[in-house]
Amino acid sequence: MSTERLIYLPLGGAGEIGMNAYVYGYGKPGKERLILVDLGVAFPDMDSTPGVDLIMPDMTWLKERANRLEGIFITHAHEDHIGAVAHMYSHLKVPIYARAFTANIARRKMKEHGHPEEAVQTVSAWPEVVKLGPFTIGVVPMAHSIPESGGMVIDTPAGRILHSGDFKTDPTPIVGEAFDPDLWASLGKDGVQALMCDSTNVFSLNPGRSEVDVGPEITKLVGAAKGMVVATTFASNVARVKTLAEAGERAGRSIVLLGRAMQRMVDAAFETGVLKSFPNLVSPEEASQMPRENLMLLVTGSQGERRAASAQLARGKYRGLQIKEGDLFLFSSKTIPGNEKGVISIINQFSEKGVDVVDDSSGIYHVSGHANRPDLETLHDLVKPKMLIPMHGEHRHLREHAQLAISKGMASAVVVNGMMMDLTGDTPVVADYVDTGRTYLDGTVKIGAMDGVVRDRIRMALNGHIVVTVILDEDDAPLGEPWCDVKGVAETGRSKGGLVEALEKDLDQFLKRANKKTLRDDDKLEEGLRRVARQTSQNEIGKKPEVTVVVSRMR
Amino acid sequence: MSTERLIYLPLGGAGEIGMNAYVYGYGKPGKERLILVDLGVAFPDMDSTPGVDLIMPDMTWLKERANRLEGIFITHAHEDHIGAVAHMYSHLKVPIYARAFTANIARRKMKEHGHPEEAVQTVSAWPEVVKLGPFTIGVVPMAHSIPESGGMVIDTPAGRILHSGDFKTDPTPIVGEAFDPDLWASLGKDGVQALMCDSTNVFSLNPGRSEVDVGPEITKLVGAAKGMVVATTFASNVARVKTLAEAGERAGRSIVLLGRAMQRMVDAAFETGVLKSFPNLVSPEEASQMPRENLMLLVTGSQGERRAASAQLARGKYRGLQIKEGDLFLFSSKTIPGNEKGVISIINQFSEKGVDVVDDSSGIYHVSGHANRPDLETLHDLVKPKMLIPMHGEHRHLREHAQLAISKGMASAVVVNGMMMDLTGDTPVVADYVDTGRTYLDGTVKIGAMDGVVRDRIRMALNGHIVVTVILDEDDAPLGEPWCDVKGVAETGRSKGGLVEALEKDLDQFLKRANKKTLRDDDKLEEGLRRVARQTSQNEIGKKPEVTVVVSRMR
Repeated sequence: MSTERLIYLPLGGAGEIGMNAYVYGYGKPGKERLILVDLGVAFPDMDSTPGVDLIMPDMTWLKERANRLEGIFITHAHEDHIGAVAHMYSHLKVPIYARAFTANIARRKMKEHGHPEEAVQTVSAWPEVVKLGPFTIGVVPMAHSIPESGGMVIDTPAGRILHSGDFKTDPTPIVGEAFDPDLWASLGKDGVQALMCDSTNVFSLNPGRSEVDVGPEITKLVGAAKGMVVATTFASNVARVKTLAEAGERAGRSIVLLGRAMQRMVDAAFETGVLKSFPNLVSPEEASQMPRENLMLLVTGSQGERRAASAQLARGKYRGLQIKEGDLFLFSSKTIPGNEKGVISIINQFSEKGVDVVDDSSGIYHVSGHANRPDLETLHDLVKPKMLIPMHGEHRHLREHAQLAISKGMASAVVVNGMMMDLTGDTPVVADYVDTGRTYLDGTVKIGAMDGVVRDRIRMALNGHIVVTVILDEDDAPLGEPWCDVKGVAETGRSKGGLVEALEKDLDQFLKRANKKTLRDDDKLEEGLRRVARQTSQNEIGKKPEVTVVVSRMR
Repeated sequence: MSTERLIYLPLGGAGEIGMNAYVYGYGKPGKERLILVDLGVAFPDMDSTPGVDLIMPDMTWLKERANRLEGIFITHAHEDHIGAVAHMYSHLKVPIYARAFTANIARRKMKEHGHPEEAVQTVSAWPEVVKLGPFTIGVVPMAHSIPESGGMVIDTPAGRILHSGDFKTDPTPIVGEAFDPDLWASLGKDGVQALMCDSTNVFSLNPGRSEVDVGPEITKLVGAAKGMVVATTFASNVARVKTLAEAGERAGRSIVLLGRAMQRMVDAAFETGVLKSFPNLVSPEEASQMPRENLMLLVTGSQGERRAASAQLARGKYRGLQIKEGDLFLFSSKTIPGNEKGVISIINQFSEKGVDVVDDSSGIYHVSGHANRPDLETLHDLVKPKMLIPMHGEHRHLREHAQLAISKGMASAVVVNGMMMDLTGDTPVVADYVDTGRTYLDGTVKIGAMDGVVRDRIRMALNGHIVVTVILDEDDAPLGEPWCDVKGVAETGRSKGGLVEALEKDLDQFLKRANKKTLRDDDKLEEGLRRVARQTSQNEIGKKPEVTVVVSRMR
């Protein structure tokens, strides 16, 4: 009979930024009772996931063990931590625990998907705890770029786990609780088996600045503006939205929220008491009747998203409002790697309209929500864990963070998605490797990342698509000539008659020369026609498109 | 009889970074004699140009006026200035002028395309000049991140034009000529009608640093390295390649060049006398027999290009060499916006191998090849032009640069591709708007950006593709049932039987209900089948794929 153990298994977020999902377990091997911390999404891009709507961690492993799952905790309401909860709920069907603001957002998502809102349970901050199987779990206030972010205290028979969640050590975060060093020191004072720690900003060498620092700069900028002012930030950064709105109010401007997420986050913050005051708002309709120098719009789309308010304003009107020469557009945000082109494209569209754009290149209109390297060390030093496991970051972040931890005398390891670690002893030990992966939401359907659907899309995007149609009679003889339809392929190549003509000629010759055996065999025939189509294309246009062969038989 | 005029017409590079192509003309309206300065390419991306190999400026306007074109000048051998010359030569067929290093690269390209190398004429630096029609043209040494970059002196009956080309004001560029303030002052002393000026770095507020500054830092880094050192930069940055190689040599390492572009640029630099010395090289084969701590590889792929040496090393072996735990990889380069994901992906692959990666985040291992804002002002102030026309930059760069010029008392205007400016007077005046655009090299074929080919690829990538096949007999009655092939589309949707089954059922019902008029009419029939296929897909999987309908008639 083997002894009980404490395990940690990231299913998402370890080896990438996005789609966080961390499993903890305690019990005999293979019989551990489990909890899941976070269940987030990542966002698709044209390079690797064209047409995909959302990327979620593959939950197969956990689905198959749903009877051992006690509950899901959500640390905060950013999409990369909460976004997959409603999509995956029907497979897991366990209670979801979160603090009030996060629970409010979670319930909205559950409702949209037709799931019971009661599945989401609000927990108060530590020292309140939830007892689930072998675990006693508390949520500890953490400063971050969204209200009520929570670190987790997970007490187990094998000792205490602290899970930082996304955090910064901001003493003055404007909205939500400040980082409390005394509280974290007290959590660590009786020994911590392992600290799972945010790694995203480990390469940022200077201490992070406080949210309170951006207010005066924004106030100065807005105060000096002559035309309409439009500002964007992540809607969930309620503190920043408030700072921006108050800067507008101070400059005598009426505030308009544009974009559904903006309104939803402010509503959730009021409903849960996170926000107690906010400048008066006017509707877009009212605003369109007011002098533009009296307006400040707070809009979604800080990452250049095509459908967000900022991009729509860049292209033309949005809800009756228009941005014009002499107006000011402020990105109070950082551009996430990969989004540069979209953001730059919007800036150039504004430039064409004569709008002055201020971005974060000066570094004074935005602060990060994550702990920089010295701030990570602050948490390490307060908590003094036996082991430090870097979490939430690409491989380079996890590796750097692990090296830092080891250099400071902690046990550590680079643990990526699918590595099940046994944390019962003095060092992290690999207990198992679990198959993990990604599930795509595509339209209304979930597809596996390895299903080949997206691979085919990428191939069609790179190479184009040729459809070859052939009809054979009852005796397997070609009925008429084969013909081709092309999509995403150059029309004219080397022969000036056109690609389709060249293809049809060569395919016809192939058919005429094909023997009975080939003509009778669908696979052989398709393979031959595909080969000819690709070869002719290569000769004509210098590339080999994807080919679909449709063989119809008059049998 | 109208008077003669001096015109300027950017066909590429004005309103974007890349594919530079600037026309100058002098003569009576519509009869101006023309020269073209630069003929470059831009690079495709998956978002907007999937499958495309190169992007070139649409040369239709100039092709139609090729009989008025006197020649093409290439300022330097970067692809965004020289890359389209060989692709477009057959349409223009005029002499190509460049300094020796640039001409060497141009001849290699001409040869690859089967064009006469003699079309490329080497010109010496100013005060040598070429007289072409109404123009007297000289090429003036400029410091840049490639050898022998040239500014242009274009003397016309309407006064002197100075064309900066890409430049920086580096006094110590290691390879090639330093920026010479006295020379530029002398070029301006008798009055300059207009300065066309590089704008890419107008938002960089600090003076640029010199190429000479990176050497000591790189030497320090390489000197301290324990394992193999691999460094990447743009192959054309011969000065940097030399600096890197010398740092390796100083540390007692043998130098290996990996990637064809690396070797080609060093060869061209030697052949033209630009490089007089370079550390001894060893071949990859020799290197594979040497201790790794004695090696330094200089590799292509600073932008994360999938096929370049750096990406191949990140994935596994390249020419028998492998990067391993304890090795060092240095990006002595800046990541161009849009390439972040590719670069980060390589960094993470190296991290997984235990390789330490140093990038330019510290700012000490790379300097830009372009003039920052104070350096731009240095050139303005030396040359004192009547007009300053910002060139080479996105709209935001051109606008900022024009505002800067105007604030300093120069006449200026934001001139984007297709704006023909009359520069004869005291201010730039719009003379005409010319249709411009982009031509794609796709495989071996040129296609227009507006041909719809790439649009179809993007749609297939986002939505997938359904092929519907229907056969009708001699009486226009369906022969059997319709069937579907899908590519890039989820297989199973709402009905568990599968999407194809659901599609075929609905399409069959449509066909059975269709009246004779519809069945007889290809367009009507296709439209109906397409509508049904898209609607069924929407119901089943929540998205509407592209649809190709193939109707075969047994007539």
